[in-house]
Amino acid sequence: MAKTKLSGFPEFLPGERIVERRVLRSLSRTFELHGFASIETRALEPMASLARKGEIDKEVYVVRRIHAAEGEPAEFGLHFDLTVPFARYVLENAGFLEFPFRRYQIQKAWRGERPQEGRFREFLQADVDIVGQGELAAHHDIELPLVMLDALGRLHDDFGIPQVKMRVNNRKLSEGFYRGLGVDDPMAVLQRVDKLDKVGPEVVAKLLVDDLGMSAAAADACLALAKIKTEDTSFVEQVRALGVENELLDQGLSELATVVEAIAEQAPGRIVADLSVARGLDYYTGTVYETEMETLEHLGSICSGGRYDSLASDGKHTYPGVGLSIGVSRILVPLLNKGILHSSRVVPTCVLVAVDNEQTRRDSIRIATRLRERGISAEVAPAASKYGKQIKYADRRGIPFVWFGNSVKDIRSGEQVEADPLTWTPPSADLEPAVKAVGVVE
Amino acid sequence: MAKTKLSGFPEFLPGERIVERRVLRSLSRTFELHGFASIETRALEPMASLARKGEIDKEVYVVRRIHAAEGEPAEFGLHFDLTVPFARYVLENAGFLEFPFRRYQIQKAWRGERPQEGRFREFLQADVDIVGQGELAAHHDIELPLVMLDALGRLHDDFGIPQVKMRVNNRKLSEGFYRGLGVDDPMAVLQRVDKLDKVGPEVVAKLLVDDLGMSAAAADACLALAKIKTEDTSFVEQVRALGVENELLDQGLSELATVVEAIAEQAPGRIVADLSVARGLDYYTGTVYETEMETLEHLGSICSGGRYDSLASDGKHTYPGVGLSIGVSRILVPLLNKGILHSSRVVPTCVLVAVDNEQTRRDSIRIATRLRERGISAEVAPAASKYGKQIKYADRRGIPFVWFGNSVKDIRSGEQVEADPLTWTPPSADLEPAVKAVGVVE
Repeated sequence: MAKTKLSGFPEFLPGERIVERRVLRSLSRTFELHGFASIETRALEPMASLARKGEIDKEVYVVRRIHAAEGEPAEFGLHFDLTVPFARYVLENAGFLEFPFRRYQIQKAWRGERPQEGRFREFLQADVDIVGQGELAAHHDIELPLVMLDALGRLHDDFGIPQVKMRVNNRKLSEGFYRGLGVDDPMAVLQRVDKLDKVGPEVVAKLLVDDLGMSAAAADACLALAKIKTEDTSFVEQVRALGVENELLDQGLSELATVVEAIAEQAPGRIVADLSVARGLDYYTGTVYETEMETLEHLGSICSGGRYDSLASDGKHTYPGVGLSIGVSRILVPLLNKGILHSSRVVPTCVLVAVDNEQTRRDSIRIATRLRERGISAEVAPAASKYGKQIKYADRRGIPFVWFGNSVKDIRSGEQVEADPLTWTPPSADLEPAVKAVGVVE
Repeated sequence: MAKTKLSGFPEFLPGERIVERRVLRSLSRTFELHGFASIETRALEPMASLARKGEIDKEVYVVRRIHAAEGEPAEFGLHFDLTVPFARYVLENAGFLEFPFRRYQIQKAWRGERPQEGRFREFLQADVDIVGQGELAAHHDIELPLVMLDALGRLHDDFGIPQVKMRVNNRKLSEGFYRGLGVDDPMAVLQRVDKLDKVGPEVVAKLLVDDLGMSAAAADACLALAKIKTEDTSFVEQVRALGVENELLDQGLSELATVVEAIAEQAPGRIVADLSVARGLDYYTGTVYETEMETLEHLGSICSGGRYDSLASDGKHTYPGVGLSIGVSRILVPLLNKGILHSSRVVPTCVLVAVDNEQTRRDSIRIATRLRERGISAEVAPAASKYGKQIKYADRRGIPFVWFGNSVKDIRSGEQVEADPLTWTPPSADLEPAVKAVGVVE
């Protein structure tokens, strides 16, 4: 990693940045193959919209002009996710968008929280959402996780990034179950169950009883629900066996069964119904998703989201949607830090054109130009130094080929062949830096 | 343009964003063909580094955590260019970089200045620099503008963005000339000559005489120098004819002649020696560049930069370099605003797969999957509505093809042919949205 002195603001060295760009290109390509349009929004949002959601306002970076008047209230902050700006964008531009609107957005976001592994103050997210005007069909709850599993599966196939497992639940299921137990404030239960991974079942049971006045039996039922994890629709039976009856629960069970069945068919082995998935934020209203990398589960969810009935609303319409967000920094920073993800070179250059002496530099430039016209990245040696030194220049950067006059040398094998810049082509594997996971993913 | 309510923070509608992404892809590709490595730096820099350069500190956006202690000094601001963060990056990572270091950087920057045409509070820049450790050869002053002319030329060829003309000067030439006239503070002269375009020669002459105490004859000589514009090296004679003698002037003339001759040969018609080019910032020490789009000169320079002897310096080394920066927002926002640059569709989708009824949606999904596997962007109709309505869904987005069962229809021509998703391929021009300048560029 680059030696930035500002904790929580990761920066990449050039070779690492090649890895990042390749991953982002792959993600964008998958999203576009599925018909999602890219948007970008400005970095700043009004404080009023940033401060709205629960406790998040604690972490906002406030922005003001250095010459703002003394005591002038801070109007703007850096966005802390891509959902708040997307909601504003949809409302402001609804008249110019076609609904259902399929968008992806890959941008940095900022949070002033204490940095720790997998959490940063500046980080990159890749979001996809489908938003309807007034209504949005249920089948998009199946489509969107499949888009993300396709995107993450390509990262696995192409770069060796660990495979993922997506865990899915449904808010109606949990809420209906809690209501069936006689709970008035199901969100309060959900927030405590959400801590299960961190504090364990005993503490959660105690919180449910002490904070919310639940009976020990009801608390146990909540924990029993959260323990249910199945790769098929057999979770339905297991929930029924807990003996709770509620209409919303029925609806949630049915919705989740449809989603799990379809995803299990189209992406076998990548999905599990996990009734402990809660998602902290309060705007989800149906299906919710979390995703871990296999063997790297300790990094937490790297792709989360869910269904919301109303992302935003103007006088005329509400805008329901379903969205998922990949934590790109959360995936890449640890894999790069540990040297697991690797680029074969630290420059895009495929060919270094050597220079005999400064008087013939233009000949070398002409060769490089010919190569570039044919899509081969080339640079001309910066100095007409000894050939050994020019080869070393290439070697230190991982540049595979050095061009001398009428021939080109593969400096890895030492093989040198006669070549014409109008026709010579490198092996396709050498055209771009090769990006691969190396070594054991622990 | 998207209806953002925050002046100076342009946002794009999806079709405009397709144009922007295509332009950025083209720029990155050219930079990489020339062997430049991408880097990105964090958005925040310490206030101390942002406040250093002349008057720029007036325009900085200050950033602080919302819960920072009352009266705690503001430590960080948003970067206002990509040069300050690049200098820091080079110093912090010098031990991990190979020099000369060739980097490009495409990122947003922020300035709190009053918005006006061509100036924004949030804007996108594309910078390329070559930086040496201790020294950097003179030929890079020729290489770097050729990289930018190649990049801008491709935008012209591929998208119809207006051709450009680069104007080039040399600080040593100006400074030597002024010193030859007996001026002690050549920077003060330069800053006034820099206003020539805005206030005209009479006012500049008056400033030189009144502010700096120059003689009328010396002021006239400065203006005569600034009037010299030649597409070849004949500027040398014209400067000599002004009768000023100075060693630094000789060096500047020789350096500029070398640069102009080489660029005129390799990029004919794209370069002019223009001795009025001053560049306001004080860190340039040799060649300086500005670039206008033909027929859109009123937008000002869209690609500027120059040579600096010391971008940064640590105890052991200085880091001289040469860099140029394209004002991407300055080019794109007016061309998009006026509807000149245009995408043939507002989504990446090439094929909409129609849905007969919800029971056969999975068949449509399978067809879309087959197409995507072969690199064809496809989405499945969101509702099993009447075929006319599904065609309208595609038409409103500019999607050229709709797939029905065993056939595919080009909805522009109405032609429908039998097709197999394992073999059918659209015309290559339809694979991606077509991005072109349309209408007269005024």
